[in-house]
Order: sequence, then structure tokens, then C-alpha cells
Amino acid sequence: MKLIPPFSVFVRLFYVLFFLGTQAFAQTDPLPSWNDGAARQAIVDFLQATTRQGSPQFVAPAERIATFDQDGTLWVEHPMYAQVMYCLDRVPLVVKAKPELAGVEPFKTVLSGDHEAIARLSMDDLFKILAATLTGMSVDEFKDQAQQWLDTARDTRWKRPHTELTYQPMQEVLQYLRANGYKTYIVTGGGQDFVRLYSERTYGIPPEQVVGTAGGTKYGYDKDGKPFLTKEPKLLLNDNNAGKPEGIHLMIGRRPYAAFGNSTGDRQMLEYIQAGDGARLSMLVLHDDAAREYAYGPAQGLPDTKVGAFTQALYDLAKKQGWKIISMKNDWKRIFAWEQ
Amino acid sequence: MKLIPPFSVFVRLFYVLFFLGTQAFAQTDPLPSWNDGAARQAIVDFLQATTRQGSPQFVAPAERIATFDQDGTLWVEHPMYAQVMYCLDRVPLVVKAKPELAGVEPFKTVLSGDHEAIARLSMDDLFKILAATLTGMSVDEFKDQAQQWLDTARDTRWKRPHTELTYQPMQEVLQYLRANGYKTYIVTGGGQDFVRLYSERTYGIPPEQVVGTAGGTKYGYDKDGKPFLTKEPKLLLNDNNAGKPEGIHLMIGRRPYAAFGNSTGDRQMLEYIQAGDGARLSMLVLHDDAAREYAYGPAQGLPDTKVGAFTQALYDLAKKQGWKIISMKNDWKRIFAWEQ
Repeated sequence: MKLIPPFSVFVRLFYVLFFLGTQAFAQTDPLPSWNDGAARQAIVDFLQATTRQGSPQFVAPAERIATFDQDGTLWVEHPMYAQVMYCLDRVPLVVKAKPELAGVEPFKTVLSGDHEAIARLSMDDLFKILAATLTGMSVDEFKDQAQQWLDTARDTRWKRPHTELTYQPMQEVLQYLRANGYKTYIVTGGGQDFVRLYSERTYGIPPEQVVGTAGGTKYGYDKDGKPFLTKEPKLLLNDNNAGKPEGIHLMIGRRPYAAFGNSTGDRQMLEYIQAGDGARLSMLVLHDDAAREYAYGPAQGLPDTKVGAFTQALYDLAKKQGWKIISMKNDWKRIFAWEQ
Repeated sequence: MKLIPPFSVFVRLFYVLFFLGTQAFAQTDPLPSWNDGAARQAIVDFLQATTRQGSPQFVAPAERIATFDQDGTLWVEHPMYAQVMYCLDRVPLVVKAKPELAGVEPFKTVLSGDHEAIARLSMDDLFKILAATLTGMSVDEFKDQAQQWLDTARDTRWKRPHTELTYQPMQEVLQYLRANGYKTYIVTGGGQDFVRLYSERTYGIPPEQVVGTAGGTKYGYDKDGKPFLTKEPKLLLNDNNAGKPEGIHLMIGRRPYAAFGNSTGDRQMLEYIQAGDGARLSMLVLHDDAAREYAYGPAQGLPDTKVGAFTQALYDLAKKQGWKIISMKNDWKRIFAWEQ
């Protein structure tokens, strides 16, 4: 008895499935939260140019890589980066373990709860807080601490977990790219270990596809001889500005075809992507919707803030380079999945 | 007219394909170059334990990660690492561009062609050669230079391109793991940028799944304002010994379930994998086949060499920890794909 049918049966079944699949796909809008416009069209055009067989700009499936900044591009970054909130919230627990820090700056100011004084802390102070709250513990201890915060912390405006403050239109772009064979990466100035904790559940992006600001770890053994890694206060990659293309080279090793950002910290990543051959997609999210989210810039006269600067110079460069601007106000039908 | 058939048709077609696929797979030996024995059995048992639905040690597909050392584990490392040969071969070209180096050590010794003197070069000298041949150029220039060498260089014994000196039994393990949903990574002391050049074609492992010794790059612009990355003589990750688990955390961010190595430089990676919960597979390739490849150790009384030390202490630790030893002589039917 012949158990295996001839190869041609597989081929025919494959074509049947492929045809049915194509039909089903063609009837579903992959970007339902986007308004018609130049931004939406740029995404659709890019995907058609790079994935349609026979296109002069066709990109082989293995080469299909797209990178996304996180804060302000995939989720809310105002009034403060979620990870900075984590570090500030963590300070009382650090001080509890090391009471001698209670009277020492910048911990004293953080403990005071004086928001204005905290907002005035210098970069040096901030680094001290980051080092005290993000390093010195084992990788597993850090995971437990940060996971607990992610599970319980709520943002100040919508009173929701931070992982619910992702932009639904960008989630659709991630899925649309992946449905067309693109590997999606987060390339963030945020801490790599922090973002990796929720990237898979929140964005469908596995930890190994998160490139972020990364410190070193140190291998050692516990008292039972079991090996573990300790997070060290040693910076390996500052994944902002020029650090983004450098981090992409280090962690991915090839040039992405599409990149999304929202601030001057993403400029070099967009330049680097654009400098490659063939069709490339570089896009910037402009926060111009104070009613549904926030409005800040200072591009196009939007208010200047400490977080996520989208300068007029970046706006002008984008226009000159042909990078597409995504207006949250005009291009997005809705911002969050839970909106009506 | 209804274009889309009911969902149940998809489901039935899927089961037909799945059933046929299972039948076809069951009849093919996934490890044809392996002799029956404990090593082969350990691989088969591990895969069954971690991928068979309902197994108490079942591992979710997203978590299935396996890491492989390269030199001596996936391809020949004797009498010298291929990448070191590249660097030595490159020296005359570096000196041509910078003639002042001709009279300076260690370049003078390399140019002399005196193999014994070259073999006696210190680690410091070697680092000078690595820095001169692997850094200072753009990422793209490096790719061109190394690719040209890979295309033309031949090893001294078999007179074949180095990329043909991969171990067929290990290629089968890579494919067997991938066929069961494992993501396969190279975790090598070799240079990340070097190995990434051929990993996809040679092992089916894309560049983004190569973790290796990595230097920093520096982002800048050429005279036309086009951005590019320059390879800097700044070490970010020494991916040997403790650097292997540290590199795995940096680049992958989760603990692999299986790891393969062949020397003391792989010990910490194997320990780290083994320290996780559930079924873990840690294996070491023992070079005990002077006739078909090389025999060196010095485990089990094999000759001690400068390259790829598999010490007796590592051998004893492997036995104690339950790591499986792969004897090239006894476990492998053939070493290379091109053998009869």
C-alpha cells in the first residue's frame, strides 16, 4: 500500500489553499484604524513594491526587516517615559533595602514626592536613579520586580496599565508587515531588559527582536553553585540617535527596509534605512492630537517638552528626504484599541 | 456568488496536509549521518520531550531556542581558526595601504611567512593583527574584503573553501531542531560580522541569529552626506567563556533549551542552559578522529593544542553534569557532506 500520495497532490493542495487564502485576505482591510491619506498610502505602496512577485523593488523574504521606536511611536510617552516612572516608583524599595540612601540626593528628592523638584533633576541625577533601580540585581530578580510593576502600575490620565496604551494603528502596521513576511523589531532608547518583558504579549514581538539601551551582565554562581547573571552598571549600547543604527548593526546585522520613529532620537535610524537600495519606508509619528492623546513637538508650533522632541528641523528634514509624517489627528481614526 | 468557502473546508484541508506531512516525515531519518548510540539518542529524546504535545517537559514554540558554538562544533577549527587565517592573509594588503607597517612587529613577522614564528606570536600581537585587519574600515568594505577571501581561500588539508568544512551530522541536528520549531543560533567566539557573512548560506542561520565577539561601530557620513558605519577597535562583547551566557542574554534575551560546544570556552554556556527548568540538552563534540578530521583535546589523552582545548576537567564535568559527549569517531558515520 502506498501511503504517500504523489508530489503533485501536495502541489495542487497548496495552490488551492494559496488561492483561497489570497481571496480571503483581499477582502479584509489590514489598516482599519487609518484614515485614507498619504501616510496610509505610503505603507500600502511600500508593501506592494517590496513583496509583490515581479516588482522591480521586490525584497527577498529573509531580508524583510522593519524597525520601530517604542516610546511615542508604539505607545504613550507622556508625561514621562514609563520606564522612568518605574525607576522613580522603585526608589522607596531601594531605600528600604539601603536606608543610608534616604538622606542622599537624588534619592531624597524622589522620596519627597515633590513633582516639580523631581522634574528638575539633572541627567546625572537620573543616571544615579537608573543605576540604583536597574542594576545590581540578578536578571531574574529584575524581571520579577519590573513585572510586578507592569502588572499593577496605572498611568495618570487613563488609569490603565501602560501596556494598554499602545497605538492601535501602529499595532495594525506591525501585523500588516508581519502578514507580508516582515520581521518586526523594536529599536528603543528604553532599556532592553525592560521592554523585552512585555514585547511579546503587547506587540507580538519576541524578546530577541527587541534592541534597546543595554547594560552589561556578569556571570557568576550562587551559594549552591547555580550560575546566574547580574545586571552591571556598565553601558554597552546607548540606543538613541547614532546608537540606533549602531545597535541595529550589532543586534540584527542587516539594514532594515522600513523604520518608524517620532523624535530627533530616531533621525539616524531613518537616515540609515533610507540610504539603502530599493524601496525604503521611513515614517515619523507627529503628536498633534491634544484631545485624544497629547500635542507636543516643537515641530509645527506644537509645545516643546522634555520628552520626545520632534523639532521643526526634523520636520523639515523629513519633508526634504521624503520621509512620511503620520499625523495622529488626521491619519488615525482611533488611537487606542479600547476607544469607542 | 460566494467566493470564500466555509471555514470547515480550510480546517479539513489543513488536516489532510498535516496528516500527509506527518506520514512523509515519519519515514525519513532526520539524522542519517549519525550512528546509533547515546549521543544520537539524547538528541531524539530531547526533541520528543520538548515538542510532543502533552509531554510534561513540553516547550512552547516561541521558547524553543538552541545555540551552537561554531569553531570545532559546526566546522573545522584546525590547524587555525578560519578567521585568524583571514586576518593573517589580509596583512599584506593592510601593509600595502600603510607601507610604514612593513618594518613594525607583529606585521613584519607575518610578512616573513615564517610559520613557526607566526605560531609563536603573543596574544597582544594577535590583537594588533585583528585590530588592523578587522577594524578601521566601513562595515560594507569589510564585507567585501572578507567575502572575497571566503570565495577564494582554501584550507591546507582538503583544499576546499572553509564553508565546505562544516560537519554534516551537525547540519542535520540544525535542520532537525528547526523542523521541530527551534530557532537555531550560532554563539561563537569568532567575529560576529565575519560569521554573519556566510551563516545563512552555510548553516541556514540568518545574520540576526549569530551572536559573536563584537566590536563597536561608529555612525558617520561620507562626503556626499550618505551615512555609513565604521568598525571601531572597541570590544563590546568577548563571546567566549562567561561572555557566552552574557552574549546570549544581550542578543537573545532568553535562556536556550539546547547548547552545543567543543571546548572550555563553551563551559559557561552549557552550565547556563542546564540551570534552567525542564528538559535541557548540553552536548560537547570530542575531536577524536585523526583519520577523518583531527584528534586533539587534551581530554582522554588526546594531544594538547593551541586551538579548541577540550580539557580532561571539562570531560569530567560533562560526565558529572550529564552533558552528552559526541565522539566524532564513534558517533558520526561521515564528517563532511562531500565524503563518500
